[in-house]
Amino acid sequence: MKAIIFDAYGTLFNVNSIDERLHHYYETHATELAAIWRRKQLEYTWLRSLMGRYKDFYALTTDALQFAATQLQLEISEAITADLMARYYELKIYPEVKKSLQQLQQKYRLAILSNANPELLERAVKFNDIGSSIERIFSVHTIREYKPFPGVYDLPASGLQLKKQDLLFVSSNTWDVAGAKAAGLQVAWIQRKGGVMDILDQQPDFVFADLGGLLTIKT
Amino acid sequence: MKAIIFDAYGTLFNVNSIDERLHHYYETHATELAAIWRRKQLEYTWLRSLMGRYKDFYALTTDALQFAATQLQLEISEAITADLMARYYELKIYPEVKKSLQQLQQKYRLAILSNANPELLERAVKFNDIGSSIERIFSVHTIREYKPFPGVYDLPASGLQLKKQDLLFVSSNTWDVAGAKAAGLQVAWIQRKGGVMDILDQQPDFVFADLGGLLTIKT
Repeated sequence: MKAIIFDAYGTLFNVNSIDERLHHYYETHATELAAIWRRKQLEYTWLRSLMGRYKDFYALTTDALQFAATQLQLEISEAITADLMARYYELKIYPEVKKSLQQLQQKYRLAILSNANPELLERAVKFNDIGSSIERIFSVHTIREYKPFPGVYDLPASGLQLKKQDLLFVSSNTWDVAGAKAAGLQVAWIQRKGGVMDILDQQPDFVFADLGGLLTIKT
Repeated sequence: MKAIIFDAYGTLFNVNSIDERLHHYYETHATELAAIWRRKQLEYTWLRSLMGRYKDFYALTTDALQFAATQLQLEISEAITADLMARYYELKIYPEVKKSLQQLQQKYRLAILSNANPELLERAVKFNDIGSSIERIFSVHTIREYKPFPGVYDLPASGLQLKKQDLLFVSSNTWDVAGAKAAGLQVAWIQRKGGVMDILDQQPDFVFADLGGLLTIKT
């Protein structure tokens, strides 16, 4: 194992950082709005990739927010949309992430593989000051297909000039775990929310409560 | 316009027919169980098609039910699973469907295009005694890709030996409306639940409250 490739949202970055701002604008509707927004954001990545109608992550996330507001019959101005979307540039990392990356980079090359636009990822990495641990940021934007399309999971091996079997992919999202595994990578599932593994006939090689568990892997 | 192609679940058949049985087994948990089951059922079609890991609709619907029960920490035996899945063979049609199909078949060739296994569809058609109105049943099972993969929407034109522009596709599911439209079909959205159109940069040609509206189209 020579490199560890991290999913971004839910794995390194906590998207709940946006909830506070949603609550500021929508109070009692914030929780339901957040749930629909996130579900539609994911659905739109899958649907657009299947339809062959790629649209970048920032743009489809804006569409998903608009849908969620419309469904709940809430007013959403351009200013509020822009303010909420701007939070993606300043998502906080989970508490153990910075230290774990610093320790892991002693043994492995580290990279990110995400659905998000390169600029979103670069700015969130910089905001959290973890850029010195991350060698490369891979985005699906390069090939205009979203996870779990298998070609997405080929990007890191190709970009780092390593073999697939030299990589470990790390994600808290169980459908992403299944996608990477089906594409031939070794995979660690970060079970942050005590969630249930999706039933897609794929199982992770490792399961950890947080990134700290990666330090225990014998290689 | 020479033929009308109907989506099955939510458009012709009311999947809520299963809810009564869910309530029999799970009472206060039934609503939440039904919601997770249906969401996962759809997600698994999209994810498996993207992953290139097709599994038939009956089998992945069983997986989705298992996932939903596990997530809610409910026991589900093989007997209960089999009983719930058997309801798919006996889904009821919406109240206006039978009469609308009888009237539409005077003017158009009628067919179904669905994610479901051919056997599921054939038995549900027979159960509701609408077989004499439906000339053909097209299933994604033929090409092992799920909606909204564009190739799926090519099946009816090819099977009926018609041009795409001679077809009208009809669905209550907004992502399915968008998929068919992106694939080059004319589309009518049956807005059964007063729902919101998904934001996928595609709009239906017609919007009706139920199938009765199709009778008003001038061709």
